[in-house]
Amino acid sequence: MSSTEASNNSGVNGTEAASSRSLLRRIVDFLDEADWSFKKDKDRPIVKFISPDSLMSEYAEMLGLPDKPVPEDVLLDNLKTVYDLSVTSNHPRFYNQLFGRVHEESVVGSLLTDAINASIYTYEVAPVFTVMERLAMQQFLELFGFQNGEGVCTPGGSIGNMYAISLAKSAVFPDARRLGLAAMPPAKIYVSMESHYSMVKGASFMGFGENAVVKVATDEHGRMKVDALREHIKSDTENGQKPLMVVATAGTTVLGVYDPISEVANVCQEFNVWLHVDGCLGGSAILSESRRHLLDGCQRADSLTWNPHKMLGVNLQCSLLLTRHSGALQRAHGTQAAYLFQQDKFYPPQFDIGDKVIQCGRKVDVLKLWAVWRGLGKSGLGDLVDRKFTLAKQLANLIAQRQKTDGSFELIAEPESTNVLFWYIPPALRGQPADWSKRDDSWWRQMDAVAPLLKKRMTLDGSMLIGYQKCAASKNINCWRMVCSQDTNSEQDMERIVGEFCRFGEDISV
Amino acid sequence: MSSTEASNNSGVNGTEAASSRSLLRRIVDFLDEADWSFKKDKDRPIVKFISPDSLMSEYAEMLGLPDKPVPEDVLLDNLKTVYDLSVTSNHPRFYNQLFGRVHEESVVGSLLTDAINASIYTYEVAPVFTVMERLAMQQFLELFGFQNGEGVCTPGGSIGNMYAISLAKSAVFPDARRLGLAAMPPAKIYVSMESHYSMVKGASFMGFGENAVVKVATDEHGRMKVDALREHIKSDTENGQKPLMVVATAGTTVLGVYDPISEVANVCQEFNVWLHVDGCLGGSAILSESRRHLLDGCQRADSLTWNPHKMLGVNLQCSLLLTRHSGALQRAHGTQAAYLFQQDKFYPPQFDIGDKVIQCGRKVDVLKLWAVWRGLGKSGLGDLVDRKFTLAKQLANLIAQRQKTDGSFELIAEPESTNVLFWYIPPALRGQPADWSKRDDSWWRQMDAVAPLLKKRMTLDGSMLIGYQKCAASKNINCWRMVCSQDTNSEQDMERIVGEFCRFGEDISV
Repeated sequence: MSSTEASNNSGVNGTEAASSRSLLRRIVDFLDEADWSFKKDKDRPIVKFISPDSLMSEYAEMLGLPDKPVPEDVLLDNLKTVYDLSVTSNHPRFYNQLFGRVHEESVVGSLLTDAINASIYTYEVAPVFTVMERLAMQQFLELFGFQNGEGVCTPGGSIGNMYAISLAKSAVFPDARRLGLAAMPPAKIYVSMESHYSMVKGASFMGFGENAVVKVATDEHGRMKVDALREHIKSDTENGQKPLMVVATAGTTVLGVYDPISEVANVCQEFNVWLHVDGCLGGSAILSESRRHLLDGCQRADSLTWNPHKMLGVNLQCSLLLTRHSGALQRAHGTQAAYLFQQDKFYPPQFDIGDKVIQCGRKVDVLKLWAVWRGLGKSGLGDLVDRKFTLAKQLANLIAQRQKTDGSFELIAEPESTNVLFWYIPPALRGQPADWSKRDDSWWRQMDAVAPLLKKRMTLDGSMLIGYQKCAASKNINCWRMVCSQDTNSEQDMERIVGEFCRFGEDISV
Repeated sequence: MSSTEASNNSGVNGTEAASSRSLLRRIVDFLDEADWSFKKDKDRPIVKFISPDSLMSEYAEMLGLPDKPVPEDVLLDNLKTVYDLSVTSNHPRFYNQLFGRVHEESVVGSLLTDAINASIYTYEVAPVFTVMERLAMQQFLELFGFQNGEGVCTPGGSIGNMYAISLAKSAVFPDARRLGLAAMPPAKIYVSMESHYSMVKGASFMGFGENAVVKVATDEHGRMKVDALREHIKSDTENGQKPLMVVATAGTTVLGVYDPISEVANVCQEFNVWLHVDGCLGGSAILSESRRHLLDGCQRADSLTWNPHKMLGVNLQCSLLLTRHSGALQRAHGTQAAYLFQQDKFYPPQFDIGDKVIQCGRKVDVLKLWAVWRGLGKSGLGDLVDRKFTLAKQLANLIAQRQKTDGSFELIAEPESTNVLFWYIPPALRGQPADWSKRDDSWWRQMDAVAPLLKKRMTLDGSMLIGYQKCAASKNINCWRMVCSQDTNSEQDMERIVGEFCRFGEDISV
């Protein structure tokens, strides 16, 4: 054995066996040891909280980008530290956002995507992926009841919603592509008060301006009031505004409720306005026999967005934009870049799908979805969606019970999907009248301060992560939005959550 | 041993050892066997070409999304087939696009990103990543000579360039955010004839319209003519148009040349116009002592885009947008979604970076870049950039030599970065006068047909992948754009390429 071989095999920290393995194998070894999919240990803390300043000072060297390379063993240690300091959404107690555990199939699909590193623009360089995306979209169109159409993966739901604006613009103002919005009549985009903020962000980014977005009032459940929508469209039209599109939200971000799509579709039909369904959160209900009715009417939409990276456990980013108008994407976005989309290729150029999108190089997002779907089947995915909806009901029931028995919790709304909105009420603040209008201002102010304080305790303890926010349904007082995002959870986990609130909140005085 | 254990351990196709491994380990085993990073076998075909129709019919079942789950062994076989049918940009003979081999560090960083599956919007759920992105951007700002500023990862360079338009809009028309472009004077965006098509796509998507984009003439090297730019801005201003921004391209897509940034910056200063540098391709030259002069003047830019997923071997997507205006991203895009960016958190809210961007959920793109940078160092990355530039010169020299000795090739332009533009001239078409104007139309038509035919032969053989296209520099006649994207290549590989053209082209008659 030469001395070089000897030093290669000894490693800085590792054993002989470890250092002869590739970095990829070594990181997989580590992930296995770390129990990354939480098969063994659900009880370890979800977060080891360090303040931003401490993180930056304690890990300054590690976080930096050096002039000279670091040895592989150091890099591996660094990567382990990154993992240890991170919050993983796979953790069975991650309830903070609208997504949870990723399936192993997804990570495996992602890994293959990264190893191949194809850009999904031409058949030439991404034969399987261009075809796979195309076929998957056809299946999804069918699933949502579209007779026809096309679709594409987008880098997230916000940009997917911008695609919808772009398609509506292209349909309503075909000349805007060349001439710009300045040459068009002023346009209006109708969303509900509870719609996702990406519609406002998109309208601004895309030159319509935030004022173009009309926020239609919602009913007591948080659903768009269809009569109010009709009134807006009518009066705007009379005042020389051009209704561009209506957005029905299927699964609102905070409350998780579904706008009445069929009724909204009736209004769109009446006034001949583009209907977009923002199903980023709630579109997955289509897979569940018992919940798909929530999406009734979606087959009448002109476009629809859906994020399998939310309820389906596909890792970020996996977002889809569907439209029932074949050719609409090319009409809106096609620029026929001569260096990519040559028309004299030896295979049919329609298999080069890259000109339909607003990206040029585009990472493959479809393989991980395909792998998860094949691994779990439509049936398995449907069960998983059901499971999350059921957990939300179970938690809501537990909270409603507490509301009755000791007044420690108050349910803000019956959950329609995965989100449960509630207050935890510390002992010192209990015993208020049921009628909200009978509670005084100082009580509301105190309640508003409970959540941030309790969140701090929860985070520092590492017990679980749940988000809070002010919203219309909670009188703009901080309330908890628990997202039942972990299909591995049981009713016992929901009971634990209730118990943890009491543990952290019992002695809160604000 | 129970019968269940026995059946778990036997597997459908696999051995006992294989079936007891996780799917993740099994795919890594496969990638190793398949020599995914081409450490052993450079000579296997880069593509096993199958026509789109055959692919769809022969692999119909595999490409579909089933109702019921498929067994793990079947899924693994499917994934192997996907790999075998794919074109991997890691292949030492992938020269088709502006990127090549991904480093193992990158794939490892990606894998960790996917296993953690954090969304990089708040410190709360992505502590290390939000800080890592922030610190990396500070280092990059310094690298490009910005005194101040901020930056963010974007899902590709096209969307990064849209960010630049958005920032310019926000600076020039602060009211457009609310009121839209219809309430603003007509704006103009100046790019060169050789600029990337994403500027036109972006202008259209963002409501300015394609007509807002002014394509400034280029000189004989493909660089923006600064006098022409000045004239455009002057006359547009006199005609009541508002110059919104100038885009200097640092590494054009086809020719790979750099616009004279300093001179463009002088014009921008003179007229007080936003300067954007599109360094998606060529920004990496900043890392190389011997090439960074190509970017002289970039420190005067208002914004700059750069894709480490191109020359640096980071896997897709890894794109950066930098601006020297601190707070500009928030001013342009911030909407303060109450459910995410609470201001009463127990840590400083400025560490929640998600409101700066146009996405909501956002995949982490910085970890893989960080891992590559730490693994190779700035010095290693600089060497790698040099290597690619050097290969391009070597190939150009070989071609120039052939042009002199037997007229089998013609060099269209001396390469400035990684792209080499040339014609291969089959024997039947050789011996034309050096002066292009003296060659007749039928010869040009025949030459135009050579590339598609030769590309077909090259692809079916699997020998290598190189792109061709028409462009201004080639009189709009199909020519080859060889991208020296593989730093593992040597001068011998360049000689092989020349030889392969002769092998495929020798008997071409068109």
